[in-house]
Formats: sequence, structure tokens, C-alpha cells
Amino acid sequence: MIHFDSDYMAGAHPRVMERLLRTNMEESVGYGSDEYTRNAAQKIRRECSMEDADVYFLVGGTQTNATVIDALLRRHEGVLAAESGHINVHEAGAVEATGHKVLTLPQYEGKVKASDVDAYIKEFYADETYEHMVAPGMLYISQPTEYGTVYSMDELTELSEVCHSAGIPLYMDGARLSYALSSEGCDFTLADIARLCDVFYIGGTKAGAMMGEAVVARKGVLKNFFPLVKQHGALLAKGRLLGVQFDELFTDDLYMEIGRYAVRLAMKIKKAFLERGYEAVVDSPTNQQFFRLPNEIMDSLKNHATFELWGTRGETHTVVRFVTSWSTREKDVDTLIELIK
Amino acid sequence: MIHFDSDYMAGAHPRVMERLLRTNMEESVGYGSDEYTRNAAQKIRRECSMEDADVYFLVGGTQTNATVIDALLRRHEGVLAAESGHINVHEAGAVEATGHKVLTLPQYEGKVKASDVDAYIKEFYADETYEHMVAPGMLYISQPTEYGTVYSMDELTELSEVCHSAGIPLYMDGARLSYALSSEGCDFTLADIARLCDVFYIGGTKAGAMMGEAVVARKGVLKNFFPLVKQHGALLAKGRLLGVQFDELFTDDLYMEIGRYAVRLAMKIKKAFLERGYEAVVDSPTNQQFFRLPNEIMDSLKNHATFELWGTRGETHTVVRFVTSWSTREKDVDTLIELIK
Amino acid sequence: MIHFDSDYMAGAHPRVMERLLRTNMEESVGYGSDEYTRNAAQKIRRECSMEDADVYFLVGGTQTNATVIDALLRRHEGVLAAESGHINVHEAGAVEATGHKVLTLPQYEGKVKASDVDAYIKEFYADETYEHMVAPGMLYISQPTEYGTVYSMDELTELSEVCHSAGIPLYMDGARLSYALSSEGCDFTLADIARLCDVFYIGGTKAGAMMGEAVVARKGVLKNFFPLVKQHGALLAKGRLLGVQFDELFTDDLYMEIGRYAVRLAMKIKKAFLERGYEAVVDSPTNQQFFRLPNEIMDSLKNHATFELWGTRGETHTVVRFVTSWSTREKDVDTLIELIK
Amino acid sequence: MIHFDSDYMAGAHPRVMERLLRTNMEESVGYGSDEYTRNAAQKIRRECSMEDADVYFLVGGTQTNATVIDALLRRHEGVLAAESGHINVHEAGAVEATGHKVLTLPQYEGKVKASDVDAYIKEFYADETYEHMVAPGMLYISQPTEYGTVYSMDELTELSEVCHSAGIPLYMDGARLSYALSSEGCDFTLADIARLCDVFYIGGTKAGAMMGEAVVARKGVLKNFFPLVKQHGALLAKGRLLGVQFDELFTDDLYMEIGRYAVRLAMKIKKAFLERGYEAVVDSPTNQQFFRLPNEIMDSLKNHATFELWGTRGETHTVVRFVTSWSTREKDVDTLIELIK
Repeated sequence: MIHFDSDYMAGAHPRVMERLLRTNMEESVGYGSDEYTRNAAQKIRRECSMEDADVYFLVGGTQTNATVIDALLRRHEGVLAAESGHINVHEAGAVEATGHKVLTLPQYEGKVKASDVDAYIKEFYADETYEHMVAPGMLYISQPTEYGTVYSMDELTELSEVCHSAGIPLYMDGARLSYALSSEGCDFTLADIARLCDVFYIGGTKAGAMMGEAVVARKGVLKNFFPLVKQHGALLAKGRLLGVQFDELFTDDLYMEIGRYAVRLAMKIKKAFLERGYEAVVDSPTNQQFFRLPNEIMDSLKNHATFELWGTRGETHTVVRFVTSWSTREKDVDTLIELIK
Repeated sequence: MIHFDSDYMAGAHPRVMERLLRTNMEESVGYGSDEYTRNAAQKIRRECSMEDADVYFLVGGTQTNATVIDALLRRHEGVLAAESGHINVHEAGAVEATGHKVLTLPQYEGKVKASDVDAYIKEFYADETYEHMVAPGMLYISQPTEYGTVYSMDELTELSEVCHSAGIPLYMDGARLSYALSSEGCDFTLADIARLCDVFYIGGTKAGAMMGEAVVARKGVLKNFFPLVKQHGALLAKGRLLGVQFDELFTDDLYMEIGRYAVRLAMKIKKAFLERGYEAVVDSPTNQQFFRLPNEIMDSLKNHATFELWGTRGETHTVVRFVTSWSTREKDVDTLIELIK
Repeated sequence: MIHFDSDYMAGAHPRVMERLLRTNMEESVGYGSDEYTRNAAQKIRRECSMEDADVYFLVGGTQTNATVIDALLRRHEGVLAAESGHINVHEAGAVEATGHKVLTLPQYEGKVKASDVDAYIKEFYADETYEHMVAPGMLYISQPTEYGTVYSMDELTELSEVCHSAGIPLYMDGARLSYALSSEGCDFTLADIARLCDVFYIGGTKAGAMMGEAVVARKGVLKNFFPLVKQHGALLAKGRLLGVQFDELFTDDLYMEIGRYAVRLAMKIKKAFLERGYEAVVDSPTNQQFFRLPNEIMDSLKNHATFELWGTRGETHTVVRFVTSWSTREKDVDTLIELIK
Repeated sequence: MIHFDSDYMAGAHPRVMERLLRTNMEESVGYGSDEYTRNAAQKIRRECSMEDADVYFLVGGTQTNATVIDALLRRHEGVLAAESGHINVHEAGAVEATGHKVLTLPQYEGKVKASDVDAYIKEFYADETYEHMVAPGMLYISQPTEYGTVYSMDELTELSEVCHSAGIPLYMDGARLSYALSSEGCDFTLADIARLCDVFYIGGTKAGAMMGEAVVARKGVLKNFFPLVKQHGALLAKGRLLGVQFDELFTDDLYMEIGRYAVRLAMKIKKAFLERGYEAVVDSPTNQQFFRLPNEIMDSLKNHATFELWGTRGETHTVVRFVTSWSTREKDVDTLIELIK
């Protein structure tokens, strides 16, 4: 059996694992006050060309989103997001559990449009009853999106401008940021993201780490963040484990190397499916690929490979997702390609 | 100036006011443990043909919705509602503030369809990742809807069946229930509502009371509701004031009389607008009427009458709302009709 | 039967009721945008010698406390309060329901000491693990306290200073403020309170109004308060009802007159009980009086008068509370005094 | 420098680390649906002699407490806990952030007494105003306590009985359960705990795991727990990492071996401090030891060893804590003992 279910199927990238092993017996203070964590933060700041950025390490994506959003919003505000945004669909109501509404925007292959954000905010304040409604207090985007698509530099710039002219922060969920940064045609860098977003996170769990997400914030934007992280149960006692991992991920370009490897394999898969005449649901340049397959093909594939249905099984065709990561073996990709011949 | 802004512009219906005045100097225990409150509850139970119903009196609509929904849902659940539902739009995120997501359904002139509810629930549980999503834990409907439309007996029966076969409660926001019950063509009674819904409330604020909403629940459905009402700040210290008012509203058919009067005036307005060739946005049989008016007509009317814009001003036409109530004078309605000639 | 259970047993003071009646048929816009509300706010500002104070009218005390506290605190903060504080004991966890901890201080006849507040804050920040604990974000006091006692001008000044030197706001629950202001020996005015507190509320429900509490805040301290009031279900649709009542309460000194009347009767009761040799649990100068009575005396009184047990029945003696208000008849007080002879 | 700050200073126990390394490249489904997790759960059930227990693996202690408490309580309820309980002091208000009050009980060396629990509940329901107060909905205890002390079998039995006769669940925070189970004089087993508690957790983070806590619940007590774990951000994407670790911890008695080792070293430290005449603040039989040291001794020790102040520095003496774990080297303990000679 070959596996394309997700990018969190194996443990840690061998280099990350090796680093954890090497430092395992060292003793350090807890909660991220250790030197590894400081070093990792410093490397990330450098990569972001933002020497005074605030950097925090949390354990997982859902808790990172909930904690950051809770920190950014005032009580009467909600968070703007694509209807298909992870926080709106697949986080079990974690944002609402902190008391905030997710205000939905139309999605275009997972992306939101700056013009929609602008219109939403303008119409909101043009409505005489706006004080009876949940105020748009920030914008959430995911990069790449839940459909694997990537906002271009122009799109990010527009979103940043529309947010800042409205006085609300822009927050980017970068659970799979590695794959956006290493996608073909990517025209921005981590430094661009740091400049355009107020807060974003660099996903570790889905890109080589055992677990861990690095939150990067323009200095001072996230106030009293440490106690909030604790309150949200997102503070790792052995905080240095996150520091060690991100320190390694940001050594010798590993974070990008992981992305490039997975994206290259995903492109091979995409090319093969398209050549065989299957329909790609979106044109994703990253490590997630979505195809609408005839049910008999899908069922037959299931005998040899694991992958996820995207939504529910259709009558004749079903959308399925194939995901690659650092742990995907090229020979498994080749086997998959053979299988759909 | 004549007023059609809303149905909460005057104080209390004269009979209600008179009753408050007459009982004003009496002393009774607080928090609704008094005899007036017991009597009012008893009258409501009788009207609902449900002798063992639980009846509670709260102060206002938003808090009633938030408290009931909070009482009915478990922590991982959300409330299904029309996109246009009051809880989704105009309650400043009160439901989310208690930690629950509003799960939106398409609206058809403010109503939801039983088939959409059914499909939502079936698709939810057919999705393999459903435990990562907010479970539909109840259905919220408003009767009449925010657009003034009314669910028929058949529609209510279908909604009730689809909810109960899915094992979730049906809750009806009856802020303007008086106007639904007295609308032309209404084919159900309070007893039908009590039978079909698990919980609903009979709106007082918008139908003759100074303030107050009567929550009616099938026995035992609302557990530990008293402390929750207190926790939500929805418990009136001088609880008997609500009892006195509902006791009067449910004496000699006053609650229905108030509805019939306002609906009759609303129908006069509707007829006149339609005859003059203006477009009714929906075909509302209740005390709220929505018309799309040319801006110059609207602006000219504004010199003589007050009413609300529904949404924001359009380029050439704008949707406006006219509302009647027990306090609307028939001569003001006639003046309005004259004005649009 | 004569009644001393509470100060919310009757409806509204006759002058307030008369005013409600007189204005009942007028039509005005909702949610407190009307002229009565503006006038009432203006009168209160004048009485507070604070022309730019923000004034809001809410329905009840618990919701006022929860809404103000929610507005003042950041997510990682809690509210300091006496162990015996109403928010800590008798509001069904309304503060916690908004996500905030009540941080308790020792109480001395219901009061907190400035030195305890100071020590709490200093010890908090001296603890190296303070970021793992709930930060003291504001101080809540009640005036008079739940035991009827009154903070003196000196005590208030000290509390204000200790709060402001620590950078946290001071909030006063004035549910019964009328009775503190009119207590014998009271050495402060509304203007002093407005100057020393950041936010406080002037209780209407327990001092002549049907319902209603007036929140007074130093300009700008309560940000985005209107949508929060709505979100908390504390916004009255017919907002002008609160305006009308407070307008009347602040006309011709009515609010103080109500306090003076009730306090005078309470002092008669106190004197009588003390003369008969019963123990006053605290030395309350306001409209609540607490005595420790032998159970047989209490039981015998129960045949003629209603009053509350303070806590649970003791083995031989029980603490009971007698409360007076504008609606207490002097002859009932005289009867009570006769009864304990 | 030698380290006694905490029991979460090193990575994972070598055997656990080795297991993680060995399984690192395997691919498995996420969120704990894998075989390692199933095996670990099965081993824990066996150890607990409760074949139908529900077992869940979460990442950290604070989130485990908040999630379990949120799952067990209804909205109007709070959790009883010792004043010194971790949830009341050192979790940044995580319980309150889910809307629930912590109802405090007196602590005796960190423990609560069954008689106090009983009295609290009885007095609560004897109070006529109890519906205005937060109902005691469950009991939280920590074993060992925050002071290192251990409830005996008799004490646990009494607590269990008082809870169950009141109809509320008993929950045990076992962050350091390994050290209680292996403390001298321990007269209970995991099976006893499973029988007496409704829910408890077996701490991994502080006893050999990188991170991870195993929640054990009587079948059916924790309803809809999976989505709640997700909502709380406590669900690890690579769930099998927790399974692998607990599988190893429950192989060949490792979990107990870790406890015994650390406790033996702690006893050496305790004996040495007592022999030198220093005061032990409590008589702790587990891996945390608290001593009141003269400040000059403490300051001098600080040059050679790291440890935590318990509270703030006193004028002449300060309470400090020494903690041992699997990673504490015996020679460091001997050095410490030399230092205080």
C-alpha cells in the first residue's frame, strides 16, 4: 500500500529527528525560555528580514489559529475568512468557542478577493444598524489555501492594503507555507509575507517537524500573548522541543528543501493525472492535488493506495485528494502513476 | 411626522399599562416566583394546550435566543439557521459569544426548507471528517421571518419531522408571533406550534408589552434553565412585571387582537403601494412590509414619515421597511397612503 | 403580612410610574437614541460634574456587571473583588461565562482594603510564574456593599489611587448607590465617585425604577460598548423606557429622596432591634439591616413579616436581613418594631 | 550547574526516544486512529483493569484539564478544587476561559477533605438562593498534589463516595501520577484509581514522554469528546506520536520504573535536607520537595544548582522546590547533598 492521505503521516524529517535525538538528554528550562528557542526565533527573524518581529512557538494549527484570533480581536469583532477557510470548516468551532464569529466571504478556489473584503467592510459601515452586527475585526487567509492554491504577490499586496486602509490586521495561516514558498511561479519570499501580514505562522507539523507552528508578528501587534497561549493550552511544557525543530528547519534551507521536494512529486502526479484525462478540480501548484475521478477508478485505486475523499462520494464521480510531503517516496509516486495508466 | 420604523416605538398597550399601574404598589417576591407570573404561565399553557409545558419570562429577544440556544446545545454543536436569521445577522454575535457557531442554510424569503435541513445533516454525517466540524445540534427558525413571511402548517410540520428524525430540537423565535398568528391565511394555532416545536418564545416587546418574552418548552427540554437565565443577565429582579404583562396579554384575546389590528393596517399599506405600482420585495402577510422604492420617492417620503432602509441605499432604488403595531394610528396609515399617491 | 424581603418588591416609584404613563403613547426610535435618554444622560453628567462622561442605560445589575467587566478586561485578565462580592457569589457565574476569573480578596464587612489590593498586585508581579496566572485587570467594588456597609471618601480615594498607580480601572457596582449617598455620615457625592472611579453604575431597579441601571464612564474608557451591550442581551429595544425613568429619578432630587426615605426607616428598624438586645451582624448605615436572631424569635416573626435568611438556618440563631425601600410603609416598620418588643 | 527546576527539563526517556526513532519513517493515518494509539489504549485499559474504559491522548496538561472539565460540566456548573489546585492558580484561567468558575475548597498540604466537599454541596443546596449561584458540578483533585503530597486509598475512597452520593463526577489530574504510584507507602494501584474516579489522566510529559497525557474515563462519561478535543486545540495531527510513547511507557513497567527512580532520588534529597536541619514545608513522598531555606543558603546554592522559588522571596527565608525525574543524574543529587553540608 502506498500513502497519499496527508502530509502528517510520518514522524519528523530525519534531520529534525536526528537533532531531537542529539539534544535529547540536555536539560533546559521549560516553556520556551531556552537557547534553542531563542536561536530558532532569531533565524526566523533573519529569514523574514524583520529583526524586531515577535516569534512564538505553539504546538498545532487549530490552537494557533484560535489563540492568534483571540488575541487580535476585541469582543464585539469577528474574523473575515473564505467560506472554505480552515477555521470556518475544519476546526470544530474553535474560533466560536472563544466567542468570535467567522464572517464568511466568497471563495475562488479557496482564495478571497481584496475587492470582496473591501466591499464587505464598506457595506458594513454603510448599514445604519451596524452596531447590532459583528464588526469585521481582521482578515484570515490561508497560504496555500485549503485547495492548494497560492496567493500571488499582487494579491497579497492588495489584501494587505485593503486591510490596512480599513485598520484591521491581516493574518495568514501558513500551515503549509513551505509548499507555497516552493511552488512554481511563487513570486514572494518570507520577507514579503512578514512585511504584508501583521501576523502569520510558519507551519512545522505539515513540513518536517513532529509538531509545532512558529507565529511571527509585527512587533507589539500580539499583546500579552504568552498568558493567552497558556490559557489556550497551546504552551508546550518542554518548549525547547519546538525550538530545536525550528532551529533545524531553518538551518541550511531545510524548510524550503522539504517544500521543493514535495511539490516536485506533486507536479509529477498532477501531470500524470492530467495526461490520463482526469480533471483537476483546481489548478494547484502545491503539494495537495484534487482530482474528480470516476468511482470505478477511485475504487480500484483504493486497493493499492490510500488517499482522502474530498467531501462525500458522488454518484458517478468523486473528488479525491493526493498529498505529498518530505516522507513521500518517489517510487511510490511512480507506482501511483503506473496505477492510473 | 408619522412613524413606521418599528413595532417597538411606543410604551405598552394601554390595557397592559393600565394593569401595570393598577398593580404597581403591590409587593411581591422577586425573580418570577410571584402569583402574576404563575397565572400568566398557566394561561399560556392553556392557550398552548400543553398543561405541563415549562414557561419562563425573559426580558428581551436577543438574550432569549442566546440563553435558549446555550441551554439546548452541547459544547461541540452549533445552531442551524437561515443566513438571514436574526441570530446570524442582528444580534451582535450573541450566540457566538456563548461559544457556538451559527451554521447557515439558504433562505427563501427568510425561510429555510426542510429538505435543506435534511441534506445538511445527512451530508454532515456522510463526511468522514465530521468530527472536525461543528455538529448541527438544533434548528432555529423565526416566525414570522425577518422578511415578514410566515411558515405554513405544512412547512412547520416538515421542519419538525426532519429535526426530530435527526434527533435535534426545533426552536422558534416568535418575537413577532402575534403577527404570524393573525396573518391572513394562517393555518396553525399556538397549540400547533407548541406541539411541533421543542422550544419557542412568544414575543411581548414587539406586541404590546413594555418588554418581555415568554419562553415555552416541552416539559424537561430546558434543563437547569433558571440559573442559565440568571447567568445570561436575562432574569428580571422585579419578575412579576413580566407576569403582569403577559397575564394581561393573554386575557380576553388581547395578544391576538394586537396582531390583527397591526396586520390589517399593514395590508392597507401593502395594497396601496402595490396599486401605485411599487414592488414588494417579498409577499409578507404580516406587520412588516418591504418595498423597493425609487430614491426620489423615498427621499420625498422621508420628509413626512419615518421608516427604515433595509440594507444600504441603492443607486436608483432602495429597499425600505414599513412596520405597524398596536400603536400605529389608522389616520397615519391613511396619510402615508395619501403621500404615495 | 408586612414585607422586608428586598428593595425590588413593588413596581416603580409613583412619580416614575406617572412619567411612564404620561409618555406611554409617544413614539420614538429604539435602543436609546431618543431624547428622553439623551436628557437623562445629560442630567446624570451634570450631577456627576463630568460633562463628557459616557452614559449608557442597561436593564439589570448582573448583565451590567458582566458587560462592563467584559468591556474592561483583556482576555488574560481577571477582576479583583471581595470574596463576598455580588459577582463572586450571586450572579450564577456570569463573569466566568464571559471567560474571566474573579480573583478574590478578603472582605471586611463586605469591603476590600486598598492595602490588600496593593499587596495582591505586587505579589502577583513578584512571582516569576505570573504569566501562568490570571492577571489582575481591574477592581470591582460594590457601594454600598452586600452587607450594607459604605466605603468612606478616604477609603474610595485610597482604592482609586492604588488602582491607578497599578494602571487598572476601578469599577463600582452601585445597585444600591442611592442608599449609600443618603446614608448618615456619607462624606462623598456622585461627583466624587465619578472622579474616583473609572466606571460605575447608578442602580435604578432597587431605587425607584421598574428596571434599569445607568452606567457612567470616564470618556473613552468603555470602547465599543454599544455592540457589547447588544451582544450581552442587555440592550432594551424600547430604550427610551430607561431614559424616561432616569430622567424622572434625576428630576427634583428624587433619586436622593428615595434613598433618604428608605434609610430613615432602616435606621428605625436598626435602633429597635439593637434596643431589644439583638445583635447586628454588621453596622450598616443603609437600607439593608442584618441581625442574628434566636430561631424562635425568627420563626415567630415569620408569621407576620417576610424577610430573607442570610445563608442557611443556624442551630440556635440565624442571620436574617430586613430591607427597606421607597415602597416600604412607615406603619409596617412600626408594626415590625411592635412585633419584636 | 546541576538542575532541579522541574521534571520537564530533558526530552524523552531514552527508551521512548528510541521507539520514536524506530517508528519515525512509518506512515500512518492522523489524529490517533492508528495502531500504536490503539495498542497504547489497550495496554492502559489492562493496567486499569477496565476493559471498556475510554482512552484519549492529548498533548499537554492545561489543555487536558480544560477539555475534560468543559466536557463534564453543564453551563451553569463550576468545578470544585483546592485553592492551591493547578487549575485555580497556574493555568492562566483556562477553565474560566471555557465559561466555568473554579469553586475553591480549603487545602491541607494541597489536598481537599471529603468532609469539606460534602459540606460545600450540602450548604449550597440548603441556601434558598442557590439557583443564583454556580452549582458544584464536579470535583477536581491532583494526585500527587501541587505540594507533592499523595491522597491515600482511604481518602480517595471517601472523596469518591461523597462525589457519587452527590451525583457529581470525580476527576483526577495525574500530571505526576507516576510519582504518586511509586511513592513509599502508596496503597493503591491504577486499577483503584480507575474504579474510584470517573475520569483521570496519566501524565506523560512529566514522566518520560516528550509530551502527552492519557485521559482514562469510565465508559460513556465523556460524551462527544473527540470534537471537543479538536475544538480545544488539543488534538495532535500526528496522533500516533502519543500512541507510540504511551505504548512504550506501558511496556515492561517503564512508567513505574521512571517514577520509582525519581522518587528514590527525591527521598535522598529530602533526607539530606532534614538531616542538615532544614525545614520541609510539607512531608512530600514524591519527586517534588519543598524546603524553607535561609536566604543566604539559597543564594549560595544558586551558584551551583538551579531550582525554583515557591512563591516570592521572603525577608530571611524562602521556600524553594527541588524536583527529580528520570533525567536527574544520581551524581548531581550527590553533589547537591554535598553542597548543603
